[in-house]
Amino acid sequence: MKKYKMTIGYEGEKYRGWQRLKNSDLTIQGKIEGVLSKHFGENNEIQGSGRTDAGVHAACQIADFTTEKAVDCDALMFTMNKFLPEDIAIYSIEPVDIRFHSRFSAVEKTYQYRIWKASYPPVFQRRLVYVYEGKKLEVLKMKKASKTFIGTHDFRAFSSDKTKKSTVRNLKSITFEETDEEIIINLTADGFLYNMVRIIVGTLIEVGNGSRPDTEIEALFEDKVRMKAGFTAPAGGLCLMNVKY
Amino acid sequence: MKKYKMTIGYEGEKYRGWQRLKNSDLTIQGKIEGVLSKHFGENNEIQGSGRTDAGVHAACQIADFTTEKAVDCDALMFTMNKFLPEDIAIYSIEPVDIRFHSRFSAVEKTYQYRIWKASYPPVFQRRLVYVYEGKKLEVLKMKKASKTFIGTHDFRAFSSDKTKKSTVRNLKSITFEETDEEIIINLTADGFLYNMVRIIVGTLIEVGNGSRPDTEIEALFEDKVRMKAGFTAPAGGLCLMNVKY
Repeated sequence: MKKYKMTIGYEGEKYRGWQRLKNSDLTIQGKIEGVLSKHFGENNEIQGSGRTDAGVHAACQIADFTTEKAVDCDALMFTMNKFLPEDIAIYSIEPVDIRFHSRFSAVEKTYQYRIWKASYPPVFQRRLVYVYEGKKLEVLKMKKASKTFIGTHDFRAFSSDKTKKSTVRNLKSITFEETDEEIIINLTADGFLYNMVRIIVGTLIEVGNGSRPDTEIEALFEDKVRMKAGFTAPAGGLCLMNVKY
Repeated sequence: MKKYKMTIGYEGEKYRGWQRLKNSDLTIQGKIEGVLSKHFGENNEIQGSGRTDAGVHAACQIADFTTEKAVDCDALMFTMNKFLPEDIAIYSIEPVDIRFHSRFSAVEKTYQYRIWKASYPPVFQRRLVYVYEGKKLEVLKMKKASKTFIGTHDFRAFSSDKTKKSTVRNLKSITFEETDEEIIINLTADGFLYNMVRIIVGTLIEVGNGSRPDTEIEALFEDKVRMKAGFTAPAGGLCLMNVKY
């Protein structure tokens, strides 16, 4: 039995997210498992570094699978890219130690959120950005507020998670890039809760457009009440950029 | 009667090209004229800087129109972007001198051609690149061959034009950018003939993959025979980048 690690990219627009569903063909995991299983004539399952929601993209998702069959990595990559839909690509396949686990071995993830602020629509990036049409965003305010999130906190208020598991995470950095057309926010943490990036971004947008004072954020960490935090920014602006092991 | 200049971007994939057709709604010119005419309650025609073929994109196309109606440029831009399809955007509208002519006043155009060479498919750029799957391209050879095209020549062999008009053009520069995934070719000229960029790129690709000696190109300028030049590179890799006045 050998284990292989795949690096994967996808445009999430058409999919119900990463995770395989019983009654839908429209998941990234389902598509990749389908092609793998057909190739090997087995029932191959893959383990991703984490789920991405419906509509979320990935420039670099990691997943692994095991098989007892002989694997020519280059040939397999060629076959998979041939049979996968055009919005999913396999960037690399390589053998890894059998103890490697795409999810549990991950020590850090980076997501990017793209906010389109120009007064005209994004012709070429339209599937990859959130078209923001509200009041002008003050990026300086957003930057200042973002500092409150940095560090190890209980992010319960910034998550749609309803499990009883720990909601403590270490958010290592939030950086901003601004162009004439976009505000781009990069977030790196040891892990993210369900909807965490999108709720943090939603909260930062509310600070940026003046509808929420940045002084309120500290209290959210104490209250731990999801409803008091910002809106969940749309999935289409979000992209998983990197997973570190 | 006042004249207005528009800067326009579009993803050409779904369209039969720039130029209005009698029996198809699927042209960029047709779409824009439709929205303008509805807005003004007139029969507005627009004049583009030139046609782009079916499937060709534009990051910066210029067109003008005249009207006797009062025009609030910002409001008109907002309305047009609201009613145009999401793959066409108006970047700006400004009043110009009545003698301005989008086509005849243009002194220089720049096109970009993107060749995808990576061994995996282009998930995020798939509508904007030509996925090249042939023998490895040697960019140094292509660069060397490109120098033969620079200057004022009769480009008849590199055009699908069948008119009797002059096919002499001044090709001012061809520059290359190379990334791990792409070879990008930028071409600037005082004007381009029908299919000229795509045939030059096709010829350069044939030089790059070794199927055509670069020493043959000089003779093509003398022979002036379209069939002897390279293939017409696919429309999807081509984008109009700039028009200079």
